[in-house]
Amino acid sequence: MTEESTLWQRSRQAAYAEITSTAMRLFLDQGFEQTTIDQIATTAGISRRSFFRYFGTKEDVVLGGLAQQGELMRDALENVPLTVEPWEALRQALHAVDALAVEPGVTLKIAKMMYGTPSLRARSIEKHLHWQSLLVPNIRRRLGLAEDDATDPAPAAIVASAITCLDVAGELWTSGDGTEDLGVLYDRAVAAVRSGA
Amino acid sequence: MTEESTLWQRSRQAAYAEITSTAMRLFLDQGFEQTTIDQIATTAGISRRSFFRYFGTKEDVVLGGLAQQGELMRDALENVPLTVEPWEALRQALHAVDALAVEPGVTLKIAKMMYGTPSLRARSIEKHLHWQSLLVPNIRRRLGLAEDDATDPAPAAIVASAITCLDVAGELWTSGDGTEDLGVLYDRAVAAVRSGA
Repeated sequence: MTEESTLWQRSRQAAYAEITSTAMRLFLDQGFEQTTIDQIATTAGISRRSFFRYFGTKEDVVLGGLAQQGELMRDALENVPLTVEPWEALRQALHAVDALAVEPGVTLKIAKMMYGTPSLRARSIEKHLHWQSLLVPNIRRRLGLAEDDATDPAPAAIVASAITCLDVAGELWTSGDGTEDLGVLYDRAVAAVRSGA
Repeated sequence: MTEESTLWQRSRQAAYAEITSTAMRLFLDQGFEQTTIDQIATTAGISRRSFFRYFGTKEDVVLGGLAQQGELMRDALENVPLTVEPWEALRQALHAVDALAVEPGVTLKIAKMMYGTPSLRARSIEKHLHWQSLLVPNIRRRLGLAEDDATDPAPAAIVASAITCLDVAGELWTSGDGTEDLGVLYDRAVAAVRSGA
């Protein structure tokens, strides 16, 4: 990589971070749906066209981090020894990327916005489907299935249920104003699914 | 209900069914994304404006039945004695509404379209979230929790995981061209989630 491309990349990252923080401030102050892309652009001192160089939609500003977390989860899962069973391995990976270590404050405000805005909710589910595709290959190996065995529903079912439990725990954490520990809620959700009680 | 309103209702239902079947034929012949609302309206002999009297979006034409199935599922679940444990009760309700009794043919073509079109996939997940809200109260009672106890993640986690297993089974049934039995795939998905293997 040349020095020039690094510089370009760094300034791109800085612009991305700047637009994100400007937009999040507006979303939290006046509401997600009430904030327009034009307003974000004006406040960040860029053109509407520049905005679309960084984000495809307004939803992407909020959910950009979620896509990145999927890649981190995949890497964390790869680092858990294959002898660890799927549910426990997924739990360790979630803890490794700090997905279960959330504090109220700004996170709670963002979570309330996510669960309360249908377009953000739908988009976050799409991102979770993407996580699923990133994590299934590892769980497949962990279950001793062939790399290319796409006929057994087990790996996708376990990964999708884990993400579902995370989502249910997150929703409860949010509606409870962050007073319960997200990790504890996740463990209770998983235990309920597995025991059926 | 007056005779007039019944007649009006019946003609509305007939129009709804007619537009749906016209649109589905076009979707399956030429692809979902390639079919425009104008084309559906013209082929069905109605105006674009009339189309929007029946459907909010093109996606709604495909997913109209899914919303209805949620209500049927809720009713079926109410009919399963409260002594039956959650997972088994959900399984019985799925069988009662014929959600697991699918044949290849047209269903397979529609399923391929659903899983292959991002906007339909996203919308079907939203509909499934709605199912979740319809089924959770019954599972809450089934677990012996208070009607208004929204602090226990168990009911939502079990319902959401069951729907997730149905989705995973449906995707596998579709990619396998409907050669495997959907009910068997669902049972295997659930067993995998519960045993973790």
